Amino acid sequence: MSGKISALDLGIAELSEATKAYFAKCEEKLGLVPNVLLAYAFDEKKLRAFTETYNDLMLGESGLSKLEREMIAVVVSSINHCYYCLTAHGAAVRQISGDPALGEMMVMNFRAANLSPKQTAMLEFAVKLTEEPAKIVEADREALRNAGFTNRDIWDIASTAAFFNMSNRVAAAIDMRPNDEYQPWRGESFLLLIGEVNAPRWPRQRRPSSWR
Amino acid sequence: MSGKISALDLGIAELSEATKAYFAKCEEKLGLVPNVLLAYAFDEKKLRAFTETYNDLMLGESGLSKLEREMIAVVVSSINHCYYCLTAHGAAVRQISGDPALGEMMVMNFRAANLSPKQTAMLEFAVKLTEEPAKIVEADREALRNAGFTNRDIWDIASTAAFFNMSNRVAAAIDMRPNDEYQPWRGESFLLLIGEVNAPRWPRQRRPSSWR
Amino acid sequence: MSGKISALDLGIAELSEATKAYFAKCEEKLGLVPNVLLAYAFDEKKLRAFTETYNDLMLGESGLSKLEREMIAVVVSSINHCYYCLTAHGAAVRQISGDPALGEMMVMNFRAANLSPKQTAMLEFAVKLTEEPAKIVEADREALRNAGFTNRDIWDIASTAAFFNMSNRVAAAIDMRPNDEYQPWRGESFLLLIGEVNAPRWPRQRRPSSWR
Amino acid sequence: MSGKISALDLGIAELSEATKAYFAKCEEKLGLVPNVLLAYAFDEKKLRAFTETYNDLMLGESGLSKLEREMIAVVVSSINHCYYCLTAHGAAVRQISGDPALGEMMVMNFRAANLSPKQTAMLEFAVKLTEEPAKIVEADREALRNAGFTNRDIWDIASTAAFFNMSNRVAAAIDMRPNDEYQPWRGESFLLLIGEVNAPRWPRQRRPSSWR
Amino acid sequence: MSGKISALDLGIAELSEATKAYFAKCEEKLGLVPNVLLAYAFDEKKLRAFTETYNDLMLGESGLSKLEREMIAVVVSSINHCYYCLTAHGAAVRQISGDPALGEMMVMNFRAANLSPKQTAMLEFAVKLTEEPAKIVEADREALRNAGFTNRDIWDIASTAAFFNMSNRVAAAIDMRPNDEYQPWRGESFLLLIGEVNAPRWPRQRRPSSWR
Amino acid sequence: MSGKISALDLGIAELSEATKAYFAKCEEKLGLVPNVLLAYAFDEKKLRAFTETYNDLMLGESGLSKLEREMIAVVVSSINHCYYCLTAHGAAVRQISGDPALGEMMVMNFRAANLSPKQTAMLEFAVKLTEEPAKIVEADREALRNAGFTNRDIWDIASTAAFFNMSNRVAAAIDMRPNDEYQPWRGESFLLLIGEVNAPRWPRQRRPSSWR
Repeated sequence: MSGKISALDLGIAELSEATKAYFAKCEEKLGLVPNVLLAYAFDEKKLRAFTETYNDLMLGESGLSKLEREMIAVVVSSINHCYYCLTAHGAAVRQISGDPALGEMMVMNFRAANLSPKQTAMLEFAVKLTEEPAKIVEADREALRNAGFTNRDIWDIASTAAFFNMSNRVAAAIDMRPNDEYQPWRGESFLLLIGEVNAPRWPRQRRPSSWR
Repeated sequence: MSGKISALDLGIAELSEATKAYFAKCEEKLGLVPNVLLAYAFDEKKLRAFTETYNDLMLGESGLSKLEREMIAVVVSSINHCYYCLTAHGAAVRQISGDPALGEMMVMNFRAANLSPKQTAMLEFAVKLTEEPAKIVEADREALRNAGFTNRDIWDIASTAAFFNMSNRVAAAIDMRPNDEYQPWRGESFLLLIGEVNAPRWPRQRRPSSWR
Repeated sequence: MSGKISALDLGIAELSEATKAYFAKCEEKLGLVPNVLLAYAFDEKKLRAFTETYNDLMLGESGLSKLEREMIAVVVSSINHCYYCLTAHGAAVRQISGDPALGEMMVMNFRAANLSPKQTAMLEFAVKLTEEPAKIVEADREALRNAGFTNRDIWDIASTAAFFNMSNRVAAAIDMRPNDEYQPWRGESFLLLIGEVNAPRWPRQRRPSSWR
Repeated sequence: MSGKISALDLGIAELSEATKAYFAKCEEKLGLVPNVLLAYAFDEKKLRAFTETYNDLMLGESGLSKLEREMIAVVVSSINHCYYCLTAHGAAVRQISGDPALGEMMVMNFRAANLSPKQTAMLEFAVKLTEEPAKIVEADREALRNAGFTNRDIWDIASTAAFFNMSNRVAAAIDMRPNDEYQPWRGESFLLLIGEVNAPRWPRQRRPSSWR
Repeated sequence: MSGKISALDLGIAELSEATKAYFAKCEEKLGLVPNVLLAYAFDEKKLRAFTETYNDLMLGESGLSKLEREMIAVVVSSINHCYYCLTAHGAAVRQISGDPALGEMMVMNFRAANLSPKQTAMLEFAVKLTEEPAKIVEADREALRNAGFTNRDIWDIASTAAFFNMSNRVAAAIDMRPNDEYQPWRGESFLLLIGEVNAPRWPRQRRPSSWR
Repeated sequence: MSGKISALDLGIAELSEATKAYFAKCEEKLGLVPNVLLAYAFDEKKLRAFTETYNDLMLGESGLSKLEREMIAVVVSSINHCYYCLTAHGAAVRQISGDPALGEMMVMNFRAANLSPKQTAMLEFAVKLTEEPAKIVEADREALRNAGFTNRDIWDIASTAAFFNMSNRVAAAIDMRPNDEYQPWRGESFLLLIGEVNAPRWPRQRRPSSWR
């Protein structure tokens, strides 16, 4: 496992067999366990909720390609200057697209990229949702529809942009450290994407004590 | 069920028996199914991931009281001017605290409330994390520790504030409408909190097709 | 009279008979003297100037309905997060419109309300004038004219929005406390609007010493 | 009278004898009627309310000198980039202080001036109240007290800064034009301050129709 | 020479004969050596690089008139509230245009001026480039072309606006003080523009030691 | 030479022999002519002024190391999201420091790096100077002195941060494209720093026509 994961040092819970197997598979297939998983691993319930949300969002069925979802992730993280997410998802854009410059442009300023009007509309919506969520109005949704997106696509754009507004803030708040392996000079000859390894079949979460 | 739930009209998926029972119990106990659940119900996997994350965060074990977590929810939503979350979680603060003015102050400006230095530190951290996540540094975490919070508490403050930075943006992006029953003039003689009803024991989520 | 009115504790001046009668009538008709009047009552000249400005602005003749003026008041106060004004004027919108949800939407985010294009134009102008007064140009006035407003209406929109940019700041600077009676859970079965009681016929103000 | 006064062209009401005499005295003593008075003169009630508020605020008794009040006026107007107020009140600072460079520094950036810690505290409070009114807390008032201001002084600082946040926005909204005579290259050999002429003894304002 | 030039007191290097002659000519022709030159004069290489850049930019051949370049200078400096540049270049606009009010409007708010659509487009581009450089896109350049500017003109607008974003920050960082002579009440009967005096024929700069 | 250099296509002037030799040496030693030089090469006078300013600033004698100057360059460019400068100077930080992660942190968020208090103070000053130049006061300079910087060092910090506030805006305005060779996945086995090649001994610039 990597060195320092965050400023909080919350440790790792006694992991279930399912999670141990999941992490072992990460090590085997990716050569690493992404630090974001280790950061959540002090509490397996939180780890599971994060992983299921993440995997559905970034890898589940969608009218958006995986690359487009990663582009949204990086553009939001660029506005929020999130070191962890820019490193990990900048790597994802470089890898999925096979176009390293595209990854760099998403990290630095997506407006430097030569994107289609449709992808530009998608990212402009993500920017406004990040910077001025209170000012989103029907005209903003209509602009996405005019660019060719369905209502379901709008949901996916919105929830991806929103999710990284969450993750960026968790990472900033705890000073989450990216695995060294994500760095661009490493060559990226291996798969780095979270979720490329099947998540375990965890036992159902117990009800919080307050539910009884 | 309530009227218009969002601008996207994604409908409701064929629900599992477990979810149907969950919604029936919401109706029975709360007199309503919170619209946020209906908004996610076009896809049961997304509904489950959201509900599990939410319930763990707001109702699970924590060094923060449920009221404190709701206060963070409302303060973040006030910055982001989120109509849905201010309505639903403003109601929660009024109800849990038994102090309606406290709920109004969280919605309008928490600085008007006469809070302890510890709670003030908690909310100021949530504000900075919301407004300037890139500028969080060790001194900000240290201020929380000096106010009496543990590292685990810092995680909970951070993830609550971060979660509502996500939810505010989903709600803004789709124009999510709060249930009428949350309104303050209704009297709130019933329980409104999401999660007061046990979540169902859903079958495990299927792997996304991309995982095979 | 209510408890703490502001952080400054400037007290109440020896009031003229006219003002005493005014306050008595407020008590009789409204069940309260609005705290904003008590905050200014340390100096009867300031109280009078404030009341005359306020009453002319919010209750005088205008192409804008009283409800529209209250909507502007609340939208501006929402941007400035003014606890006093959101409480008092949120109550006014709820009461005048008979639509409590409308009041809540003005407090939280007016874009959630289903307004006419004309009222939307009015509130968007108030927002821009609040957030970026330096950037108002002729095109902004022209947008109001195209929405159906006269030049005199533009004056009224502008001076209402401007007035609450003043009042919000006075309230913030002195931590002005709203009367408990404004709270939405109180039922609002009585009239709360400042000015519903006739202002007194004060003696003319004395010239400031510098005028001689 | 000067040329174009504003973009609204609301004209001048049939003026009372008192107001006519007031304007005549302005012409005689100042060589001009300040355009701000002419802008309000389409409705004598509004003109009177504005003038009484203004004269009390800027010329009435206060622990702040008239120069200090003008300094606040200009610093607030500099943030809001208000052409009318910077011109008229920049002239006032130059004239009252006898230090033209002081006027220029207030217009451009008050931090360039070599002010006492007390005056710096006063202006920093005015800046925060202008830029972030929602964030004023007790510590900000305490800083003013520590700098030597009384609670009554805090009221005056606050209401002066707040008033110009109003006036700046009225001027911006209607494109109010300053009288040519305020310009710095004119020499300022005459008195320019509004209020140096006694305001008239207007008849009491009539009750708005809504009061009956 | 003037009094205090900046907060850093870096002194004046042993000047070459060429620079001495240049400064003497400034004194003779302008009655002053602009303080910005004295601020750089602690290192003749820096002085020369600044002067050559400045003179080419503001006085060299361009599709923009000298007045237009000074207008950009002042508008950018107004956003950045730069006391030095507003003083010196506000004087330049007043002097070149022969229209003192134009200079004041550029300092205070250029939107108050009655400019041609072409000049308005030029200044709006300078504003956006100053406030949100990351958001400049092809449509912004196209707006300039539609207003009648060539690509070379766009370069000149951009580099003038960019240069003052640099100079404003140098001046702010070191508290650079304008010469008293720039003040508007001085009458400006003499030439004040930097560069009106021929720059000296300095010997070629030596290579930095690191170049060997 | 590289492909598209900017959105303006201003071409390359007839170059002097000195410049031709300079570019040839760049090609020989670096394998490229940096696109920023080609962007300025439509006018040799501008190219020379830029190069002399740049080389003195980034390579001349200073109390700041070259790495520190590059760190300032990247931190400023990160705030301004400048694709060209982040690419070129991110490469410079990686190369000079031999620490690729340091380069990535400067691009993404320098607060993620484990810097000395002195370097943190230096970068925080650069951030404030970039974001809020109008608010720099003596206390900011004093913080640098307390961190161990001399007044001359403050000049160098200020002028480096200021220079990139200029360059970022020129690059944004013209959509300047970085050479492909700067990309991090290229391996950087060659020297990329502008100025590593001796600048030519250009003939002295001719006086602008307006000087005669």
